[in-house]
Amino acid sequence: MSLETSEADLERVLGAAAAAARPFAASTPAERAGWLTAVADALDAEAEELIALAHAETHLPAAPRLKGELARTTFQLRLFGEVLRDGAYLGATVDHADPGWPMGPRPDIRRVLVPVGPVLVFAASNFPFAFSVAGGDTASALAAGCPVVLKAHPGHEELSTRTGEIVAAALVAAGAPEGAFAVIHGVEQGVAALRDRRIAAASFTGSVPGGRALFDIAMARPAPIPFYGELGSVNPVIVTPGALTARGEAVAKGYAGSFSLGAGQFCTKPGLLLVPEGHGLEDTLREAVGGVARQDMLNERIAAGFANKLAELRAAPGVSSLVEGDRQDLGCTPSLLTTTAKEFLAGGNAVREEHFGPASLVVTYADQAELIEVLDTLEPGLTATVHGEEDEAEYVRALLPSLTRLAGRLLWNDWPTGVTVSWAQQHGGPYPATTAPTTTSVGTAAIERFLRPVAWQGFPDALLPEALREGNPWQLPRRTDGAR
Amino acid sequence: MSLETSEADLERVLGAAAAAARPFAASTPAERAGWLTAVADALDAEAEELIALAHAETHLPAAPRLKGELARTTFQLRLFGEVLRDGAYLGATVDHADPGWPMGPRPDIRRVLVPVGPVLVFAASNFPFAFSVAGGDTASALAAGCPVVLKAHPGHEELSTRTGEIVAAALVAAGAPEGAFAVIHGVEQGVAALRDRRIAAASFTGSVPGGRALFDIAMARPAPIPFYGELGSVNPVIVTPGALTARGEAVAKGYAGSFSLGAGQFCTKPGLLLVPEGHGLEDTLREAVGGVARQDMLNERIAAGFANKLAELRAAPGVSSLVEGDRQDLGCTPSLLTTTAKEFLAGGNAVREEHFGPASLVVTYADQAELIEVLDTLEPGLTATVHGEEDEAEYVRALLPSLTRLAGRLLWNDWPTGVTVSWAQQHGGPYPATTAPTTTSVGTAAIERFLRPVAWQGFPDALLPEALREGNPWQLPRRTDGAR
Repeated sequence: MSLETSEADLERVLGAAAAAARPFAASTPAERAGWLTAVADALDAEAEELIALAHAETHLPAAPRLKGELARTTFQLRLFGEVLRDGAYLGATVDHADPGWPMGPRPDIRRVLVPVGPVLVFAASNFPFAFSVAGGDTASALAAGCPVVLKAHPGHEELSTRTGEIVAAALVAAGAPEGAFAVIHGVEQGVAALRDRRIAAASFTGSVPGGRALFDIAMARPAPIPFYGELGSVNPVIVTPGALTARGEAVAKGYAGSFSLGAGQFCTKPGLLLVPEGHGLEDTLREAVGGVARQDMLNERIAAGFANKLAELRAAPGVSSLVEGDRQDLGCTPSLLTTTAKEFLAGGNAVREEHFGPASLVVTYADQAELIEVLDTLEPGLTATVHGEEDEAEYVRALLPSLTRLAGRLLWNDWPTGVTVSWAQQHGGPYPATTAPTTTSVGTAAIERFLRPVAWQGFPDALLPEALREGNPWQLPRRTDGAR
Repeated sequence: MSLETSEADLERVLGAAAAAARPFAASTPAERAGWLTAVADALDAEAEELIALAHAETHLPAAPRLKGELARTTFQLRLFGEVLRDGAYLGATVDHADPGWPMGPRPDIRRVLVPVGPVLVFAASNFPFAFSVAGGDTASALAAGCPVVLKAHPGHEELSTRTGEIVAAALVAAGAPEGAFAVIHGVEQGVAALRDRRIAAASFTGSVPGGRALFDIAMARPAPIPFYGELGSVNPVIVTPGALTARGEAVAKGYAGSFSLGAGQFCTKPGLLLVPEGHGLEDTLREAVGGVARQDMLNERIAAGFANKLAELRAAPGVSSLVEGDRQDLGCTPSLLTTTAKEFLAGGNAVREEHFGPASLVVTYADQAELIEVLDTLEPGLTATVHGEEDEAEYVRALLPSLTRLAGRLLWNDWPTGVTVSWAQQHGGPYPATTAPTTTSVGTAAIERFLRPVAWQGFPDALLPEALREGNPWQLPRRTDGAR
């Protein structure tokens, strides 16, 4: 039984978000930093209840997984507080009037980023905390100064309702305007909100078909809005000849652990291992993958979808099985398949698309030219990984232009399934990784998605926003007359 | 007779742009700064020929208009050279490995912006230099490291061809890769290029219907791409009660000059003047507008389109004429109309839409509440202007949230038709001002449109891009471990 927000409640939520937009935008970054910290503290205080709810609805292990994910989520809220106190995110820029400006006299002009307005966030199935009600999109939108309407994922709706209550109450108790945060339920309700003119931007984490459908709706509005969809990713991993020789078995074991982690339900799951032909790792892979315990998938719909895609992959020309996993209700054991680069290059969607679940495909390549040919035919994604040796720098350097085209994050001798939250993180990439390749949905730069620039020309100091006043009352890092 | 690029030539241009993308991306910012300067020098050297061509095709006065526009254009190219030498645009960020990172051990991760790939630029009709072949979109895309395919505007195609020859030759002579810049002609050719998978982003300056049609094509691609359309803007100007009393006549004269400048063919033309009812400026306005000399519009299509829209505005309920301009072939004298805020609020598209040409609408408001009501029903645009007195700070402050929602640039006691190129400039706004409200098409921040972030996790120094190496060989401003 899915929850559904009533039409009247949806109207009330959207009206409240619109009404909150101006007072919320008028808050100072320091105030919002305090509000985000208050939300983090409130969630931490209810950790036990929230983790139990999440476990019951998603079948993910309470520890370390859900406990770690909640810790990540509250850390993320606090980190955006640091972004606000730092102030550089505002991009405050002051150009004084300059009669000698080479293209002609320049007026006094000053630029700063302002909140875009109410943001609609579509929560993900696979991260009930970190990409859901109080997740990265919510944290970055609130940090930017935007009210948030959160469309809950039906896979964990009780958790979503409860988390939403805690977030909304903590915000109001800390002094944020009423109506700045609310959770809604229901597919149609989400679409209605996306079409509503009071919504100024939207974000989404999920599948390519689901995200594309919402993207298309956002773009077809009379007034299109930014839509930040984080969709699919195959996450290729390359094993160089040197790494194969030096530590092939260790790489094979790491790969088995990474692609089967969390029942393969990460957008950064390595879906392809590109390894030199004649690698001789078959037994190691069979043993490592065969030793992974059965794990429950998130829900029946996802488990069934995975089974269908896996059947297509198994039936694809030239693909053979290394480990044939099975399924009992939600519980799956991992599957590993293999093919050659030649078959892969001749293959269709079945070998090229993301398989959301515990399966991966080993592709053997004859030489560097064939490896590059495969890379250059892949669709862009979130990550691309190289396992190599430092003395192969020339070999790896030749791959880098292909890898840079292919992904938002490149990894060296590591696995893509861990995504830290930091200043330098990048979680994104060209379509179909995302619908907005110039942005990130993880890391401090995620705040940029919900800000737009406004320039103030010739205003008296008293009417300028604080960020742009001559005396720089917020002590912001600013660029002034071109100088940092 | 319109020029048309042949199918074979279009294929050659797109193939060359794709082939140039990697060598172009591999150039250093300092190299590209030199290339942009070489282009600027080459254009300046041919100024006489180019201005004559532009005048013949657009009917714009050679001096000061076209001469000034070319100076603006070459200045802009050189300013992006400064952006490249400054280096902050790369957003280089270094997070060292940190085992004590609160959410769990952090790997070494480093983020920098990279070029998106080949950019398709649709040139504008009304700025044959500054928003055309060597204009702001081209300058910012080349600065970012992206090859450019330039779709010429049919309103000045000989100029476009000649400018394109100069730009392409200057780039190659300065050392840029062959194929990094080319001009194409033809509506169908532009659409075919926009649909081509080798194009990674597109930009456009022009009308709402034209821009929306191209935006829809870009969004409907199998892999949608960023589309930066700068479309329409009404550019309201508010006269406060204080400004009316203190200097109403001067404001009226300034308004007449601004909306009729260049035959009203600026995207920043003030299309609405909001002035207190009973203003008593009718005679001043009639005299100032009546004294503006007849000016040629850009071409027959634009002149005819203007006449149609003006007829709709004249026929709109409650609208009356203050000055009835006329048209002789391309030559137009300006028209001024007036209505009340009440009629405006009850009115439809005819009073609310941009009229591209020498016409504007004076709207009288009863009080501040009615003024704000009008502002809050306007569609967003590029600019909003206030003519006020410093002792009215409270009155103006109450308008600012409405104005900030409404535009990308706010002006005080000035006119929006001048758009300086500088670090703080913002030329954009929510739809229909643009299709990308988080960006600008003028000013140094325009480069951000053509860059996407990539993070490098755990890479050895020798394999990192120069911008991210530990020794910071380019001496970039970087954020390291959260500290600026």
